[in-house]
Amino acid sequence: MKIVNEEIIKKTNGKCDIIDLTDDATDFIKRSKIKNGLCTIFSVGSTGGITTVEYEPGLLKDIPKFFEKIIPSAVRYHHDDTWGDNNGHAHIRSSLLKTSLSVPIVEEELTLGTWQQIVFIDFDNRTRTRRIILQAMGEI
Amino acid sequence: MKIVNEEIIKKTNGKCDIIDLTDDATDFIKRSKIKNGLCTIFSVGSTGGITTVEYEPGLLKDIPKFFEKIIPSAVRYHHDDTWGDNNGHAHIRSSLLKTSLSVPIVEEELTLGTWQQIVFIDFDNRTRTRRIILQAMGEI
Amino acid sequence: MKIVNEEIIKKTNGKCDIIDLTDDATDFIKRSKIKNGLCTIFSVGSTGGITTVEYEPGLLKDIPKFFEKIIPSAVRYHHDDTWGDNNGHAHIRSSLLKTSLSVPIVEEELTLGTWQQIVFIDFDNRTRTRRIILQAMGEI
Repeated sequence: MKIVNEEIIKKTNGKCDIIDLTDDATDFIKRSKIKNGLCTIFSVGSTGGITTVEYEPGLLKDIPKFFEKIIPSAVRYHHDDTWGDNNGHAHIRSSLLKTSLSVPIVEEELTLGTWQQIVFIDFDNRTRTRRIILQAMGEI
Repeated sequence: MKIVNEEIIKKTNGKCDIIDLTDDATDFIKRSKIKNGLCTIFSVGSTGGITTVEYEPGLLKDIPKFFEKIIPSAVRYHHDDTWGDNNGHAHIRSSLLKTSLSVPIVEEELTLGTWQQIVFIDFDNRTRTRRIILQAMGEI
Repeated sequence: MKIVNEEIIKKTNGKCDIIDLTDDATDFIKRSKIKNGLCTIFSVGSTGGITTVEYEPGLLKDIPKFFEKIIPSAVRYHHDDTWGDNNGHAHIRSSLLKTSLSVPIVEEELTLGTWQQIVFIDFDNRTRTRRIILQAMGEI
């Protein structure tokens, strides 16, 4: 059994910027030499989220539009009374989507579908530099 | 420490079909002989999701109704401009619910509540044959 | 490699009560002596959820308001026809948010941001006593 942790840094535009992490995770698994186990992708902070999506131009528009519909950015939230940074929507979206995803590693590969990419979504209202934790745990 | 991976195949009707995976996962844990550890259930592809629910007839109607309300199937999404397969709603629902769930194994059992079942929800707009990955990692 | 399981009990007020579990999880990791690995927090039952949030008074109002908007408590659900306990909304919210969260442990610490707390949200319509499973798996 072996555990490997790695931190990667991603610059984002915020505002529902969707960053494809699949190559980062795939390369990481390869370097880790772990054959069977679990890969966890975790975004540090409370205004982002991790999920999977078919990374194609249509959904890159649909997903921000969906979050804008259910958790609008132009509304004033109680959070904004606390800090005045006008990103209450980003916090609620992050709590809903959550900042963690675990994907099995089977025979040295993540068990993703062909059209299933791992993404980080940055819900904050400004450009950010983000820390993403990659962890692989398993047998070599 | 031991890791066991298994792939199961499920035929679904799509359209928010909710498939109970609890017996599959419970039997798998028993066969794995793992006493304490983590069980991850992962659905391959970008139009399904994994979660828990009390598997009873009322909620099997309520949950599809909820997804239809927040992410309607009859709306045209940008995704449909890319592929024309009219399942944009299924992709957004999958990204929201996510395709992975991890449940602790304690003393040879999943730590589910009595009325808490593990389910796969197929959001696609047609019948599908799906691959679900079960993974148990822990001590025997 | 080592696995440690612990069960904690939390009394809640229900009705979207948001309980901070960060100190519980942090103390647990310290006691587990695990240096690198994965911490899974799992709530037993089908009317709660686990996520992260910046635990401040504004968001503690915003998040219940958000769930009330997308899954209202005052609506009659099919679930209520099954049991008559009027908590259909709590089940749907739980299925949406999910009852599991995994956070990497790196150098003896959870990889949370400074303003990112682990929380249990109790969606049920009454006071409850809840079982939360903490699990740490990794190398000492």
